[in-house]
Amino acid sequence: MEINLKKIHSPADIKGLSLDQLYTLSGELRAALMRKLAAHGGHVGPNLGVVEATVALHYVFDAPKDKIVFDVSHQSYVHKMLTSRIEAFLDPARYDEVTGFTCPGESEYDLFEVGHTSTSIALATGLAKARDLEGGKENVVAFIGDASLGGGMALEALNYAPELKSNLIVILNDNQMSIAENHGELYTHLAELRKSNGTCENNIFKALGYEYIYVEAGNDLRALIQAYKAAKDQDRAVLVHINTMKGMGLPCAEAHKETFHFSAPFDLKTGAFTHPMSGESYDDIFAQTMLKRVREDKKVVMMNAGTPGAIGWDEEARKAAGSQYVDVGIAEQDCVTMAAGLAKGGAKPVMGVVSTFVQRAYDQLSHDVAINNLPVTVVEFYASMFGMNDITHLGFFDIAMISNIPNIRMLAPASAEEYTAMLARALDAPEGPVVIRTPGGRVVHQDTPVNMDFTRYDVVEQGADVAIIAEGPFLAIAREAAAMMRDKGVTPTVINPRILSQVDAQCLDSLKDYRLVITVEDGIVDGGFGQKVATYLGNAPVKVTCLGLKKEFVDRFNVKELMEANGLTPQQIADLA
Amino acid sequence: MEINLKKIHSPADIKGLSLDQLYTLSGELRAALMRKLAAHGGHVGPNLGVVEATVALHYVFDAPKDKIVFDVSHQSYVHKMLTSRIEAFLDPARYDEVTGFTCPGESEYDLFEVGHTSTSIALATGLAKARDLEGGKENVVAFIGDASLGGGMALEALNYAPELKSNLIVILNDNQMSIAENHGELYTHLAELRKSNGTCENNIFKALGYEYIYVEAGNDLRALIQAYKAAKDQDRAVLVHINTMKGMGLPCAEAHKETFHFSAPFDLKTGAFTHPMSGESYDDIFAQTMLKRVREDKKVVMMNAGTPGAIGWDEEARKAAGSQYVDVGIAEQDCVTMAAGLAKGGAKPVMGVVSTFVQRAYDQLSHDVAINNLPVTVVEFYASMFGMNDITHLGFFDIAMISNIPNIRMLAPASAEEYTAMLARALDAPEGPVVIRTPGGRVVHQDTPVNMDFTRYDVVEQGADVAIIAEGPFLAIAREAAAMMRDKGVTPTVINPRILSQVDAQCLDSLKDYRLVITVEDGIVDGGFGQKVATYLGNAPVKVTCLGLKKEFVDRFNVKELMEANGLTPQQIADLA
Repeated sequence: MEINLKKIHSPADIKGLSLDQLYTLSGELRAALMRKLAAHGGHVGPNLGVVEATVALHYVFDAPKDKIVFDVSHQSYVHKMLTSRIEAFLDPARYDEVTGFTCPGESEYDLFEVGHTSTSIALATGLAKARDLEGGKENVVAFIGDASLGGGMALEALNYAPELKSNLIVILNDNQMSIAENHGELYTHLAELRKSNGTCENNIFKALGYEYIYVEAGNDLRALIQAYKAAKDQDRAVLVHINTMKGMGLPCAEAHKETFHFSAPFDLKTGAFTHPMSGESYDDIFAQTMLKRVREDKKVVMMNAGTPGAIGWDEEARKAAGSQYVDVGIAEQDCVTMAAGLAKGGAKPVMGVVSTFVQRAYDQLSHDVAINNLPVTVVEFYASMFGMNDITHLGFFDIAMISNIPNIRMLAPASAEEYTAMLARALDAPEGPVVIRTPGGRVVHQDTPVNMDFTRYDVVEQGADVAIIAEGPFLAIAREAAAMMRDKGVTPTVINPRILSQVDAQCLDSLKDYRLVITVEDGIVDGGFGQKVATYLGNAPVKVTCLGLKKEFVDRFNVKELMEANGLTPQQIADLA
Repeated sequence: MEINLKKIHSPADIKGLSLDQLYTLSGELRAALMRKLAAHGGHVGPNLGVVEATVALHYVFDAPKDKIVFDVSHQSYVHKMLTSRIEAFLDPARYDEVTGFTCPGESEYDLFEVGHTSTSIALATGLAKARDLEGGKENVVAFIGDASLGGGMALEALNYAPELKSNLIVILNDNQMSIAENHGELYTHLAELRKSNGTCENNIFKALGYEYIYVEAGNDLRALIQAYKAAKDQDRAVLVHINTMKGMGLPCAEAHKETFHFSAPFDLKTGAFTHPMSGESYDDIFAQTMLKRVREDKKVVMMNAGTPGAIGWDEEARKAAGSQYVDVGIAEQDCVTMAAGLAKGGAKPVMGVVSTFVQRAYDQLSHDVAINNLPVTVVEFYASMFGMNDITHLGFFDIAMISNIPNIRMLAPASAEEYTAMLARALDAPEGPVVIRTPGGRVVHQDTPVNMDFTRYDVVEQGADVAIIAEGPFLAIAREAAAMMRDKGVTPTVINPRILSQVDAQCLDSLKDYRLVITVEDGIVDGGFGQKVATYLGNAPVKVTCLGLKKEFVDRFNVKELMEANGLTPQQIADLA
């Protein structure tokens, strides 16, 4: 018997199905999901692995009265299919109607915008506490992956939640993977729990006061429904540990779990990418540069927190780096502070990190690295409007956050040559903490020598009267603007600031009698380098205009539109002169 | 037999002592420590509790070759006494020669400036990894309290460390207390471990791959030495769980553990404070305001992360608030994100937090609270240069950090009336996240009505030509400066900005043709509200001077000197006009 997926408007539509029908439903959901994922791209493995776990969730619990919080929420596609958004998974023309994460604006079944890991138990604890104060009886469920559980806040919340002594259900979706492999002894312990069918000694969840339920067949509806029913309506904290298969049902995703964690469009039969990437990329340049360094110097340690692919470190590179490669799992705090320890111990740690995640380690950057003034090098990726565009993954708030921490030199290269020179400088002449923003967008080359004094701005084009100081990918855009200005008789000075955490007073002094200084940055204006320039020149006659993004959260933006809205196109910049 | 403490210059001086002599030594160290603590103040309970644990540490291990990292390092006084700094504990004239935390500038035995919790295992992991890359054999020891273990990064590192599969020793100093009581089920588990002499089921440390050693008599040298010797030189991760008594040997500290966690000078016999605090304080105003709110509205939840005393919430207030009071332990991340969950669930969470610790939850403020635009109220304490002055506890970096996160309204009251009005507004008309900076310094009152539109600056004195926009405690200082200006014929406009996360365009537009605008903030200039003003006015004729602190880490500063060094005295401000 077939199920007409188009008729699934809400979880109520599956409550009356028989177990057989639920199995059929799961199969159809998986098939539809695969079609969309192959055509559209997305989080392949995480969603294919939880089809049954999600069907069972909405079969047993009564959302939206019962509250379900998905950790990261990259695995919420099936949830979306079951909660009034099925068309966005069936009709290719409507694929983009839903975001890739839970989104309260889309549906009352989605409670939070979420995209970072390890938040679900804390959020659930808050929901549970609010319920208890009101005397409510609904279930509160946190659905969290094994990788996310290793993040600090997940562990803090795992510790605190049972103290509420009221209903709170943690579903631990154990697919035995992070984006790449898991790290930390917790995962050895989870393996022992799986091996022993949940009965091994020293159960960490029991130690923390949870009722513990193990489901070996985490992709089997019958087992899941039984376990969820046992967890439902209890007046205590229950943890349901389900053993699922990441990428289930799609051979390429089952076989290549890291590649198909998140994927661009691909061929369903072969697993080959529909539009393979080609050409130079900064993450390749980074990986190659660092791998060479690792080979030449045993003190160099390449570090990251669970996202090796995003920083160009594929399996081969990791293997080649051997013990000089460290992945601590999704634990940015631990990674940064371990780097502080490494630096103190005489090693040369370099941490690659996605911009939106570096904010998870602000205290570690400040208290452990910066106060101690240790030579830790942090290389950011996607710290740019030419990067990720989900509201939870925006990478352009980092200048305000990092450049205002004392002792940290924040550098913004504008070319591949400057990028590798900055990396080399940080490793060869370590003076303290350095944060390097990997440029967003296409790789730019410069044919002039790199000025190695990174405390100084670089005058790229000497003009008069008007100056444009533009960092990172905006240097090239500023030069386009400069050309347009010249067409109307203004010859601007174009400056590459390179360092964002301090001003080059000597350079700025030379601009005091200019008519106009324009700063342009690949980030929000607030708290950025342009405001330092405006402040430094506040008592000079010159007028200063700071360009960059407005301080706001934007979701799935179009880069061109965003640039226009913020006056960042070459023409708009040229029009200021 | 007596030990001459003055002759203890390094750990080498205790290696040859007999066990009896070590007992004598410990007694004398404790007696000297009590004398200093009573006369000088400091972390009383934590240090008295670890006299024996520290003597044994330096007896068994070979620092500085063996590396010892103290978590928080507020319990490192005895360590300092044994490592070349004994005079600073014996001679009252030299009491201030040492800081209250480990300090590499003081001694090679101190590895890091540390003052925040939960960092030691990650730092030790870095030291251990650096050692392993060099082929070294020294021991690496993290000495961490039970309260610190509940912090996210400590748990991340606890998870990761055994993966190194090399020497790393965690000494868990279990004194059964946080600053106040502990929270979270980990502490129920630790109690079970203590009760069972370390033999209970579901040992969380064994689950994470540690060799586990329990020491019931954690204040007994013989037992400690035996356990440390067993842990020494092993090629794996070992956790030594020692059961100690906070405040041991000092009756008032044993009896009143929270009061004597950190104490001002007191009478050794009675425990009475030598200089009792008197007069109004903002933390009292906060506690009273919130307690009233809690009583009136069961949706109001008063939250904090392990530092109730620092925000005015004593035991009595906590008891009175009952289930509307939440302390999650030293877990700021969990606290902020639980607050997001509470707000989503319809409750009204208010988190009180010390400024230097709020930076431990940047991602939570941004990703969980701000993106979701949830009505969470965060009230900061010591967000001021008139606050804590240890390098690890500086509270004046928060404006740069918080005010540049979209959706958060950051408010800076200048009087008690404005402070309570802002709190009332956040609770009565919740619109989204609000962060309120409790003013530093003495309580100020205003006799004019509070303007309740907190998106607008408040013109306090209308003048012409020169304007001073001064936030928080600097409003009063600005008014002093204004009086001095008037004496020389300038009548400045004095403005209280109240909101730091956005400018009041209408107000600033009225200043465009002034000669000079001076901004003054109780924080660093970089990334602060003054730079927003300078940027907004960058294209206007008016000159702008931004005053505030230089972006640097300063240690145990004198407020007056710091103000002078940064041009912040009334006279210096007046001289600008």
